[in-house]
Amino acid sequence: MNMNLTKKILAAHLAKPSDMVPGEEIFLKVDQTLTHDINAVMTYLAFEAIGLDRTQVETSVSYLDHNLLYLDNKTPDDHIYLQSVAKRYGVYVSRPGNGICHAVQVARFGAPGKLSMGGDSHTPHGGAIGMLCIGVGGMDVATAMTGVPMRLKMPQVIKVNLTGHLKPGCNAKEVILEMLRRVGIKGGLGKVFEYVGPGAATLTVNERATISNMGAEMGATTSIFPADEQVRKFLKAQKREADFVELAADEGCSYDGEMELNLSELVPLCACPHQPDNVIPLKDVEKKKVQQVFIGSCTNASYSDIAKAALVFQGRHVHEDVSCTCGISSKQIYLQLMKDGYLEMLLNAGVRLLELACGPCCAIGQSPATKGVAVRTSNRNFKGRAGNPTAEIYLVNPESAAATAIMGTFASAEEILGDEIVKLADIQEPEEYPVDDSMIVAPLSPEEAREVEVVRGPNIKPLPVPDAPEQHLKVQISLKTVDNITTDDITPASAEFSSMRSNIPLMSQYCYHRYDPSFAERARQMGQSIIIGGENYGQGSSREHAAINPMYLGVKAVIAKSIARIHKGNLLNHGIIPMIFADPADYDRMDIEDTLEIHNLLDQMQTREVEITDVTKDFTFKARLELSDSELEVISCGGQLRYLKRQLEEMGR
Amino acid sequence: MNMNLTKKILAAHLAKPSDMVPGEEIFLKVDQTLTHDINAVMTYLAFEAIGLDRTQVETSVSYLDHNLLYLDNKTPDDHIYLQSVAKRYGVYVSRPGNGICHAVQVARFGAPGKLSMGGDSHTPHGGAIGMLCIGVGGMDVATAMTGVPMRLKMPQVIKVNLTGHLKPGCNAKEVILEMLRRVGIKGGLGKVFEYVGPGAATLTVNERATISNMGAEMGATTSIFPADEQVRKFLKAQKREADFVELAADEGCSYDGEMELNLSELVPLCACPHQPDNVIPLKDVEKKKVQQVFIGSCTNASYSDIAKAALVFQGRHVHEDVSCTCGISSKQIYLQLMKDGYLEMLLNAGVRLLELACGPCCAIGQSPATKGVAVRTSNRNFKGRAGNPTAEIYLVNPESAAATAIMGTFASAEEILGDEIVKLADIQEPEEYPVDDSMIVAPLSPEEAREVEVVRGPNIKPLPVPDAPEQHLKVQISLKTVDNITTDDITPASAEFSSMRSNIPLMSQYCYHRYDPSFAERARQMGQSIIIGGENYGQGSSREHAAINPMYLGVKAVIAKSIARIHKGNLLNHGIIPMIFADPADYDRMDIEDTLEIHNLLDQMQTREVEITDVTKDFTFKARLELSDSELEVISCGGQLRYLKRQLEEMGR
Repeated sequence: MNMNLTKKILAAHLAKPSDMVPGEEIFLKVDQTLTHDINAVMTYLAFEAIGLDRTQVETSVSYLDHNLLYLDNKTPDDHIYLQSVAKRYGVYVSRPGNGICHAVQVARFGAPGKLSMGGDSHTPHGGAIGMLCIGVGGMDVATAMTGVPMRLKMPQVIKVNLTGHLKPGCNAKEVILEMLRRVGIKGGLGKVFEYVGPGAATLTVNERATISNMGAEMGATTSIFPADEQVRKFLKAQKREADFVELAADEGCSYDGEMELNLSELVPLCACPHQPDNVIPLKDVEKKKVQQVFIGSCTNASYSDIAKAALVFQGRHVHEDVSCTCGISSKQIYLQLMKDGYLEMLLNAGVRLLELACGPCCAIGQSPATKGVAVRTSNRNFKGRAGNPTAEIYLVNPESAAATAIMGTFASAEEILGDEIVKLADIQEPEEYPVDDSMIVAPLSPEEAREVEVVRGPNIKPLPVPDAPEQHLKVQISLKTVDNITTDDITPASAEFSSMRSNIPLMSQYCYHRYDPSFAERARQMGQSIIIGGENYGQGSSREHAAINPMYLGVKAVIAKSIARIHKGNLLNHGIIPMIFADPADYDRMDIEDTLEIHNLLDQMQTREVEITDVTKDFTFKARLELSDSELEVISCGGQLRYLKRQLEEMGR
Repeated sequence: MNMNLTKKILAAHLAKPSDMVPGEEIFLKVDQTLTHDINAVMTYLAFEAIGLDRTQVETSVSYLDHNLLYLDNKTPDDHIYLQSVAKRYGVYVSRPGNGICHAVQVARFGAPGKLSMGGDSHTPHGGAIGMLCIGVGGMDVATAMTGVPMRLKMPQVIKVNLTGHLKPGCNAKEVILEMLRRVGIKGGLGKVFEYVGPGAATLTVNERATISNMGAEMGATTSIFPADEQVRKFLKAQKREADFVELAADEGCSYDGEMELNLSELVPLCACPHQPDNVIPLKDVEKKKVQQVFIGSCTNASYSDIAKAALVFQGRHVHEDVSCTCGISSKQIYLQLMKDGYLEMLLNAGVRLLELACGPCCAIGQSPATKGVAVRTSNRNFKGRAGNPTAEIYLVNPESAAATAIMGTFASAEEILGDEIVKLADIQEPEEYPVDDSMIVAPLSPEEAREVEVVRGPNIKPLPVPDAPEQHLKVQISLKTVDNITTDDITPASAEFSSMRSNIPLMSQYCYHRYDPSFAERARQMGQSIIIGGENYGQGSSREHAAINPMYLGVKAVIAKSIARIHKGNLLNHGIIPMIFADPADYDRMDIEDTLEIHNLLDQMQTREVEITDVTKDFTFKARLELSDSELEVISCGGQLRYLKRQLEEMGR
């Protein structure tokens, strides 16, 4: 049977036979797992609680890359825990300073045809090398590490046929912003975008990574490119040509949908506040005074991204009123840019070089000023994402960001360079990267590993484990949210909050802190409660703390119009029942503090439909449980940890 | 009359004739002022309140260099205020990314024979080029900017005759640590250390700066070196040979004290926790596991400092369990180190390059882990100084720091390099630095400046102004401290706390937060109160917030065994009466919450001796006011701002 690339890789990883019908659950054997510091402590606490001796996947990597600010003892303590627990369980560690997880994973670990699950929503970055990479919750990573087959709802595979080629001044960022403009932030739900065609062949691995990375912003399961000559060239430059396998969709294969995108027609674009699909041509953005420019993040900090920005800056200077920082994605890129003179160009222009870390993208430093206009090359512009809810974040490509920093207001590279813009097209990725894995700590032998003592700082509190649901639930509504609530709304990013992620008793006090500061205390006082959500509830970052914290505060269910994929998984994993309004109009009929009552909940759950009474308003409505059998089992037994332990017992492990 | 260099410079700046007898007050005309971001907002608010149109000194520079983390809107808002207020009043701005204030000031603004006052305790750094540089409180800087003569208690001048030369592996850090070992943290009170002799002639400007910078740790008024060939060479390399003036002590001049120090006899030293004078040979430090190494800060991040550290690292790697960061002092040094290959050595070794900022030295990032052993090249090792009171900070030179990072425990460069240690001696400062002042914003013309709108973020609250003392004071003791309280104890450093420095109502809630978290609320409830202190009360950083916050909380007087120079000035400036126990034994007789009563305070103050009754314990004791006439005037009228306004009125300005 002729298969598209996505289906081919999934088929090769099926743990149970399946017809792979979109929407049906499949079970997969995972090759690689990825975690990063600000999400991972809970993952490894869960893995410890499971009780296995060692990770069961080929390659598990723990990256220390998000929070390198170390404001107090908490994050360094987390890093020490993560280094020691990795040693204990056979996990690689990429040390602070080595680079951002996605960039390093593709460069040093990824390989075409592999299946990776990562505890970060931008894990699909790796789709750039023909690898199927899926962002999941932390508990899912722990599960994958046990070798137990991972459930996934079989996605639709959408062919995106790229033609033409990018003009200088346009970047792969324009491709993904154009995709976002067309399909929107929910347009990728349940889908994999498979990029093919002559246009795809012109894109380097790093350009592809910008696109696959930000597929997450459409809610896509993942995005993928073929493993072709571009991938061979990249892996060769990484001294890993041996890991190359040519992989592409079979000729004549079918897809669940098709799109056409002509790269030649793209112009510099901009995602305006406060959602990444709010995309318009850069030239149409109101010429406000820009306060801050950030060039970097996993999405757009490759060698050529930064080199192109540097060329725009060459001989020019960051506007006096602009704070311009640059976060390069990895040490090897930094060294190469240094060697080739691009860092000097940036420094001479007055650009501040940050550490090789995620940093500003998730508000770990570089918050804009009050009502500041921030222009960034990163992937999210949610309100408050940059650490300051009064700021406005605009997303552009690195060339435009540099031009904007120079002008002090929105500008394209062409406005700076004029006809000289063609020189941007001369920038090539290096034929050989400076490869040096000395910042990667390799796993110990199983014997040595068993001797390792795991070090736990005082801020690392035990992973809370929920109880199974009970038959009768009579609780109040602790919160009613608008549409498109992000996990940033539920558990704010920032150096301060992310350093609390190992300590749920502490962090839960700040649950929904920016959205509704009274929520945490109210939920706590209610003891048990339900959250009412709108459309696309829990979009954005994969952080499972957006489920753990409400669970810890007694939230038993979320009833929403729709729930984002990763967050739904996190709710299940942590024992909160994800319910969907049978009639979305019911959303309008209820209010915060209403009392909801459900009889025979456990029995009703089996039917996938639950009748709920709003006792306060005296009406009854229905909610659906869009759950597979195994998902139902997970939630029925009180979350993934209890479920997994039972599974492993049954398997005799 | 033959004069030593200190006296010569002071004499040239006398605003009123004086015999310059040590201990007597002299009045000085200041040439340059310096401020930095985390102390300066209050300074410029005060200058605004004074009402002059423009700074009245030759050169005022505002550095944005301490807090570049930008955790939320507060610090970027402060930076915007500081940039706009500088524009308004004729002040230079060194933008974020240009470098650390002291390094940039010496390189780009300083000149032999000038008199500088800076709102930072390490202002004496500039003594390296034969300039007299004195650290003062922020209100003093505002005062200096008015052109009103500055009062100073004429210091004793101590000759430090240096002989011999530093061995490879020893650094100027050893000179100042040896000084600290000999004279202790109070040994410099009321003194200027004037370094002379054949040993001094061997030291480069950057080495001298390490010594003069850390003279602050002895409590010295300042330290100074002659302006000789080394200084000419340095200024020439900065393309400023025209600013050079040869300056030295007159032959046969007299000093108030003399010391001898043979550089050849020095061995690598280490200041152990928790005071910088707790100095022992590095080889005698217990070989604990080191968690963190920081190479950098104003004190020890010159070109040759970092290059030497890089040579120790060359071909080696930071120990797996060590977090090693490097903070280079300025952009020009960074560019030169990059060009000469030293940055590559650091990166290859796994050293993390931080932004060009003060950062970790004042806990703005890079806090050690819980109970972590931190080894640093910075200047202070007070408990909690690194943002984590459970950590231990050891101060060493950059070569030793590199060796320690490699070994994972205390080590000297010699232990790493063996006989190759001689190659460290080959490192020379560049003959020409990459000079580029594009990150320095020059003052506008007075006409343009008047058009500038000063931008005030929501966190910038008005400067609180104290009331004049009253005749009858009957208040409780809100705090009784141990000896050697630092300004870090009173107002903690850290990214979080330093970002509050523009907002006294907020920041005062955290006054003495780490030392006694109940203090702020207790003082507030008492309404008015007195603090009882031990020896050397208020040592360390010059931050005037250590006076403003207690004042805001109602503290009317500090009665201590002794009070550090800059802090005493800050208390006066902000209306808290600094008193000294006539009999230090009385300290032991009183307790927190005792009620103290003073009758006829204003009259008694004139006699410089105040009789105080401990009403609770029913005894009477005496306290001295070690104040000059003008200081008495300042405190009598409710602090420096009121005093200064009156002075300016009298002067008809």
